[in-house]
Parts: sequence; C-alpha cells; structure tokens
Amino acid sequence: MPKLYPAFEQADREGKAAFTAHLGQRFALDLPGVTGWIGEELSPYTQAPLGITYPQADPDALFTAAKAAIPAWAAAPIDTRLMLLMEALDRLYRDHLFTIVQAVMHTAGQSYNMAYAGSGVNALDRGIEALVYAEQAMRAVTPKAQWARRFGRSDIALEKTYRIVPRGVAVCFTCASFATWNAWPSILASLATGNAVIVKPHPASVLPMALTVRVLRDLLTEQGFDPNLVTLCVDTVSEPLGKALIKHKDCAIVDFTGSAQFGAWVEANAHPALAFTETSGCNTVVIAGAEDLDAAIRALATTMCMFSAQMCTSPQNIYLPPEIDTPKGPVPRAEIAAKLAEAIRTLTEDPRRASMILASVQSPQSLALIDQIRSAAAARGEVLLDSRPYDHPEFPQARTATPLLVRLGKDARDLYAEERFGPIGFVIDCDSAEDALHQATTDACENGGITGFLYASDEGFIARAEDAYARAGAQLTINLTGAMPLNFAAAYSDYHVTGLNGAGNATLTTLGFVAPRFAVAQSRRPIAETREAAE
Amino acid sequence: MPKLYPAFEQADREGKAAFTAHLGQRFALDLPGVTGWIGEELSPYTQAPLGITYPQADPDALFTAAKAAIPAWAAAPIDTRLMLLMEALDRLYRDHLFTIVQAVMHTAGQSYNMAYAGSGVNALDRGIEALVYAEQAMRAVTPKAQWARRFGRSDIALEKTYRIVPRGVAVCFTCASFATWNAWPSILASLATGNAVIVKPHPASVLPMALTVRVLRDLLTEQGFDPNLVTLCVDTVSEPLGKALIKHKDCAIVDFTGSAQFGAWVEANAHPALAFTETSGCNTVVIAGAEDLDAAIRALATTMCMFSAQMCTSPQNIYLPPEIDTPKGPVPRAEIAAKLAEAIRTLTEDPRRASMILASVQSPQSLALIDQIRSAAAARGEVLLDSRPYDHPEFPQARTATPLLVRLGKDARDLYAEERFGPIGFVIDCDSAEDALHQATTDACENGGITGFLYASDEGFIARAEDAYARAGAQLTINLTGAMPLNFAAAYSDYHVTGLNGAGNATLTTLGFVAPRFAVAQSRRPIAETREAAE
Repeated sequence: MPKLYPAFEQADREGKAAFTAHLGQRFALDLPGVTGWIGEELSPYTQAPLGITYPQADPDALFTAAKAAIPAWAAAPIDTRLMLLMEALDRLYRDHLFTIVQAVMHTAGQSYNMAYAGSGVNALDRGIEALVYAEQAMRAVTPKAQWARRFGRSDIALEKTYRIVPRGVAVCFTCASFATWNAWPSILASLATGNAVIVKPHPASVLPMALTVRVLRDLLTEQGFDPNLVTLCVDTVSEPLGKALIKHKDCAIVDFTGSAQFGAWVEANAHPALAFTETSGCNTVVIAGAEDLDAAIRALATTMCMFSAQMCTSPQNIYLPPEIDTPKGPVPRAEIAAKLAEAIRTLTEDPRRASMILASVQSPQSLALIDQIRSAAAARGEVLLDSRPYDHPEFPQARTATPLLVRLGKDARDLYAEERFGPIGFVIDCDSAEDALHQATTDACENGGITGFLYASDEGFIARAEDAYARAGAQLTINLTGAMPLNFAAAYSDYHVTGLNGAGNATLTTLGFVAPRFAVAQSRRPIAETREAAE
Repeated sequence: MPKLYPAFEQADREGKAAFTAHLGQRFALDLPGVTGWIGEELSPYTQAPLGITYPQADPDALFTAAKAAIPAWAAAPIDTRLMLLMEALDRLYRDHLFTIVQAVMHTAGQSYNMAYAGSGVNALDRGIEALVYAEQAMRAVTPKAQWARRFGRSDIALEKTYRIVPRGVAVCFTCASFATWNAWPSILASLATGNAVIVKPHPASVLPMALTVRVLRDLLTEQGFDPNLVTLCVDTVSEPLGKALIKHKDCAIVDFTGSAQFGAWVEANAHPALAFTETSGCNTVVIAGAEDLDAAIRALATTMCMFSAQMCTSPQNIYLPPEIDTPKGPVPRAEIAAKLAEAIRTLTEDPRRASMILASVQSPQSLALIDQIRSAAAARGEVLLDSRPYDHPEFPQARTATPLLVRLGKDARDLYAEERFGPIGFVIDCDSAEDALHQATTDACENGGITGFLYASDEGFIARAEDAYARAGAQLTINLTGAMPLNFAAAYSDYHVTGLNGAGNATLTTLGFVAPRFAVAQSRRPIAETREAAE
C-alpha cells in the first residue's frame, strides 16, 4: 500500500465506505432529460453485479443542455476555466481518490496499487498536463492587437480583437479497463478550451466516470456555471448509443478509447466532428542482446504480467533471433523462451503475489480468447506456459488467469500480428536480430503498436531500431531493467500514442491534441473610432 | 504600379519576358514517372490558350518518389528545413515575382496590382507566417530530457529522446482564381514539419504552381535534398485525378482550396489523411447605421467590385433594415440600395478604372451564373444594377462583367443564401437591424461565411454583432471606410477562416493548422548506460 498519502489508512477506509454506500443504489446525478435508470456493472473480483443504477438521459436533451451551457463558459476568462478545472482535479485527488480506487478495482478489475497509481495519481497528472497544453495553445492567440498600414496615400489603423471559440459539444468515450487515464485529459482538454462534454462510459465501467462527472457538475454549479457542461450518457451492451452520439448533428468533438474496430469506425465516420482516438496496441519486444539477461527477462516478465496484460501498452510479441548476445557469450533462443516462461511462472506462482501483479480479468471474452489461442498455438507452435486461473486470496470468486505464453514461427502472423487483449504473449522465431527488428516494426506499423521494447548492446543496432520504431510510430524503451514497469508512461515526458499507425490518431499530449478543439474569431475596427466610443 | 520594389520597371519587363517565353512551350520539370504532356490554360484576358504543357506524372510514381525523399528531409535539423524554405520564399520574391504576376493574371484573371499584392507579397507573407507557427509547434517538443523517479526502493533515471516525425505525403490542391495565397502556407507548413508535398493545381491555373514547384525543387537539389519532396500533379477538367490522389494509400495530408461541394467530399473522405480545407464564403454585410454613409457605401462598393468578387472573402449579401441611422437622421433602405448601385456604376463606368478594380472573369461559368441570377431575380425582386461586359483597355478580348446587384426579400434564401461565385451582389430587405444581424449570421453559419462586415453606431448592437459573428464563425470588420479593401487580410494579425462553419475547417494561421502535420516519436533508456556507451 502506498505510504505517501497523509492519513492514508483512514482515507482508504472512507473510500471503501463511500464505494460500498453506492452498491445497490441509484447514483444521484441531476441530469436533464432522464428517461430511466440503468446499470449493468459487475465486479471482476466478485463476479456479482454492483447493483448501481445511473440516470439514463435522452441524448437530444444532453446535447441541447450542453449547447445552452457553452456561451457563458466560453465567455469566461481562460484563467477562470483553468483554475476551476485544476480545482476539479484537486477535489478528485483530495476527496474521491480512494472511492475511485474501489470503483476502478470493481469495474476494470485492476489491483489496488494500479487503481491508485495508474488510474489515480498518474491519470490526474495527465489531466494537469492537458491543461498546460490547452493554456499554451490558447495563450498563443493574443486577445488584442493594434495594426497600422499605409494604403496608397492614407494610413489605416485598426484595433483587432480575438476570441477563443469552442467547437461545441464533445463526446468522450471511455473504455472498460482503464477509463480515467484517457478520460481526464480528454475531458479537461475540451472543457479548458470552452467546450461542453458528454461522457459516454463503457457500460462495464461507469462508476469512475459518474464520480468524475458529479465532481465537475458540483464545482461548476458552485462557481455559477451551468452543470450541463458535463453530463453522463449511459447505455448498455445490448443497446449501445455510441454511433447515435457521434452522428448527432451537434457532436463537434469525439474522444474515443476502446477497440480498434470501433475506433476505425469513429475515425472514418466522426466527420464533421473532430476525432481523437486511442485504440489497441500490437506491442513488440526485440531481444538482440542483454548486459544482464536475467534482469531483462525479469523486467519483461513482470510487465507482461501487470494487470494481466490488459493495458494498451502491455508488451505482447517477443521477437527473438536464433541467438542472443550476452557478456557470457550467445544464448540460444530456446533458452531465452524457457527463461521467460519460468520467470512468469515464478511471478504468478504465489497467489498473494499474483494478485498484486495480475489482478483480475475484466471481461470473460479474454478467457475465451485464451482458450482460442491455446488451441490454435498447439497446432501451429508450442505452448511455453499455459494459462490457469489462480486463487485470489481476498476475492475467491475473482475472474483470474495467469499468462499464456506460446512460441510461433514468423509466418503465424494471423495469430500474433494483432492485439490479443488479455494475458497472452507470443515468442516469435526470427532469422536474425535485424529480421526480428524488421518483423517487429512491420507488425507495429501495420497493426498499430503503441509501445516497443528493445534489448541490445550494439549501438549501431540500437540506432537503427530507434529509426525503425519512429517510422513505425511506436514509443521505444531500450534496455530498461529494474523496478519501473517497462510500459510506465509519465505525464510531461512520455508521449502516449504517436498517431502514425492504427493504434489511434491522437497523442497524450501534444499541441495537436488541444489546439484543434477551439477556433479563433476576430473582429476589427478603426482605432480612432474605438477611442471615441470609449470616451 | 507599386513603387516599393527596386528597379521595378526592369523587373516587370523581365517578368513579362519570362512569362512570354513559357507560352506555347513545354514547362521543363524533371518529374518522376512522366507519361505525357498536358495543359489547357486559357488567359481570361485574351481568351486564347497559353499553349504551355506540363509533364503529367503517374500518381503512384509521385507518391513513391515522395516517400523515398522523406527520411533524409525529416532527419534534417528543424533550422535546416526552415532556412531552406525561407530561402525559397526569398527566391520567389527576388527572382520570380513578376513572372508569377503575369502567370496569375493570365490564368486567374486578376489585375496586375492584385496579382502583385494579393497573390504575390501578401501570399509570401502568409508563407512566412506558416513557417513561424511550424517552428513554434516543433520547438514545443524538446529534443531530449533527463528524467528520474523512485520506484519502491530503487531509483530509475532515464534519458528520453524525442523526434519530430512527419505524417508522410501531403497533397495540396490549389484553386483557379487565387492559387498562391493558400498554396504557399499549406506547402510550407507541410514541408517545414518534414513532409513531402504533391501540388495538384486546378487545370485552369497551373503556371503559378509549376513555377513554385520548380523553385523548390531546384533549391532542394542544390542543398543536397531529394527534389521529389515537391512535385506537381497536373490533370484536366475532363479527367480529374483529385479523388484518386486523396484516396491513395500513401496520402497522409490533404490541403484543399476550391468549391464547397468538392471540399465537403474531401472533409468526409480524406480519412485516414488529415484534411485542411477552405471552400467558399457566403459573406454578409449588415448596415444598421453609419457616421459617414457615403464613405461606407464607397468602401463597400469598391470591395464588392474588387476582382469581380472572385475572392472567397468578397462581400455578397447586404442585409438592410427599413431605415439606416445616420447623424443626419434615418435614411430609408431604398435610398441605400440606390446609392450602392450608383457607387458601383460610377466605379465601373470608366473602362480604365474598371480594369484596375474588376480585372477579368476567370471562368465562363460565372457569366452563365450572372444570367441565371438575373432571370430569377427579375421574377422575385428587383435588378438594382445590371451586369454588362466592359471594354478592357489593354485586352480587347478580355472576359469581363460589371457587377449584378439585385434586391430581394428575406424569403429568397434559395437565391442568396450561398456563395454565388463572381460579380453578383444581393440587397436583402430585413425587418429591423436585429433581424438583419440575425439573418446575416444565420446565413453565414449555415452556409459558410468567411467574412462579415458591419456598419453601426450603437455600441450595444456592435457588441451583439461581435458575439453573433463569432458564433457564426465569420471574421468581422466593423465600420471600416477608406483606402483599405474591406476584405484585406494581413498575415500575422488576420485569421482567415475559423473552421466553425461550412467555409472550411482550417485557419490561416493557427497552431491547429501546423501541429497535426507531425507526430512525436520517443525513445528512452537508462542514463548510466547511455553514458557508458558514449565513453
């Protein structure tokens, strides 16, 4: 349990109590156009329904209310919007973090530590980062300018006034397994630039977003703004509302985190709305050489196990040349594969340790996928380590699975060259280190890699890998060992998703993520006249 | 004739000679994949073919060559790219400006002065402006960072390296009537951020773009880069290549200036390419009151005549309340309408003066449209001033037309509420000043206004108009009289197109115009290791 938080244990108790108080209840949220109450969340830890229902609002009513709320918000000074949003992040941190931890655990299935760190403080950091970029982009537009030029024999002097005009109503789609980390920066980027936001959570993970929406609505109301700047649109798996929201005439911006399939639909169909997407990652590892082979294998095994590889940055495919260079001489590929399988087995052997790393499996579909890949791999390659449920020490009913690790030939791309969501890893036999790099970056480029990982000692090879991964559009981590998860992405210094391959078109965080969310409208008039008018 | 340029007259003579030397010749451009020579430009001044043919290159060959050229260009330092592109603008200015003046006159039909100013120096300014924004956006990404954090009991220190990665191959579509002003900033924004550009000029106006492409290619070659970073793709009206270029698998960015109809297709179909569009403007004028009514009418009449209203910023619709406030008391609408018609008549009476303002009509379609609107208006309203050809003093065969000005009721939106490209103006009877503002901003919002113009003395009304035009997404000019054309847009202080209505989705120039043209790719590795490797 993290030790940094003041009165951590009490906050934890209060968070658990607050979460428990929601169970089986209606979640109070005074939305416009409510037509009923729905909710179908299940805890991956208990596999029981949370029993929380949320007001389901008519999308037309949400858009109408959001549009009506925009003018006063857009007219507020930039500082007012930014300070209010900083305060929102602060309240999420001070007052709701430990409720969100429980909400994330019992919807996404994350471990306590990951729910606190990745879905909590790191996600808040990414929210602040989005505000910083939004401020930069908006401050690049001066509010006023005086301008003079001679035309023929007469001097013209104009006062020019500029205003930031939001695009309109944004719809923010959040995913089942990692909602806050993408949602907070997206929501804040839209709000900071004057837009309204309708949050459309995955039906399996509504509570973290409902809590977020309520914090924002309460704060907006307190500060004299219309709470309908931020609303929640819940739906069900059987009756999804996503496409209708995106094709709504008033939808101006779409932020989407979720499946590659729906993401591709969003990108192709969002127009005239802007689309910012992050979908899935076919994430690749190339091992050509290692100074400390065991440390590299340990780091890789740990990261492959984290949250049962249900992160869009989890490494999935390990491309191996026939031999791997080490200071003690070349190590044959079969030995590397066996070491990796053994390291994963060791990490997941003890249920207590397994529970902290693997946590639980969000969706039953991931278990079905494990079965499917196991069967296919048995015929086409070798199962290096089989997947099995492990007994969660705290939640006996938890949906769990240790990683499946299979070894395949390069030609089995139909199996490995796409994201296989869940605890599934592939060791892929390649002809050489160069071939491994080529295959890995080709797969990342063609199938959407977010992260890439390299172990190598030859500096020339490392430089070529940096080039190849940059072209493929995956962010590369080189020769990292030790306590930091290989796929840990820090706000302010780690860019998430390049937009250069199919894993999404938007980056957390660049100016390109915020600058298109607003337009600049201008008026100009003769200076003398303005002066007269003011006198 | 402008007086600022050193040795102006000689430069003018040399420009005319250089232009004349192109006539009837093949335009030398060493493009890859040339399959033939085509060219169908006609001078609106002589209505005779220019007889220039251009190499037609196979689009696949252009994309392949462009892709191959990108890595070295993208790997060059930001400064190298920016300095080379500044030099290109300088060469266009020093060595080719007066050739471009002739090329613009005899393809677009602009006057000498406009070809020099609007299509020449102002367009070069917009090119520099695009480079400034590109530099800002790229410098916002640090090339290197050192980062440290404690994980559990161990300290992790990483060196992080970032690189600007271009999207790929951009296609820049240019229009028949005003090619350089949009093309130069678009081409430079793409090139500065490391992309390659295929320029696809309108078949009626190729020469200004062919000259541009040759200057860039020569300079790239001189500086050791691959000239295929900038190529030209010519087509014909009967066999257009535009859609094939946009749907080409390697098309990453589309810049489009042209018709609203094709622009809408581009916006909806460019995906996965980014689309930056500027189409047409249903530009509106509201006259509620005027300190100096005659000066206002004169300014408006002049701007409506400029280049026969073939600019996307030309005012078209004048919304009038029953009476207009002036210091001498209210003036009835009929009198305003008559004054405007008279002012336009006076400006265009003398052929010499008419030639300097109206210039010529780029397309015969504009003449057909005048006939069509005249007939429709005769049945639905009143022709205030009829259009007629005028005798151009220098070019007796010039395609010319003085403005048609018709007066209509508010209900005739099918006639006036869209861009009617060419010298066509509408005076629209409204119920009140507020109604005029409402109607004007509604039409701008729904039908894509780029500019708005207001004459009013009531400061409250002016403030409401600023709000309404900002919401409608049209840039507003208030109470401007005098020598400056009302629609003059200066680089660095006038934003062109908001992206908030159908007149286009991109603004010259915001960060949003340049920042999405590149991505950020990152690599990171332990610092100690990096140090060791360097030792």
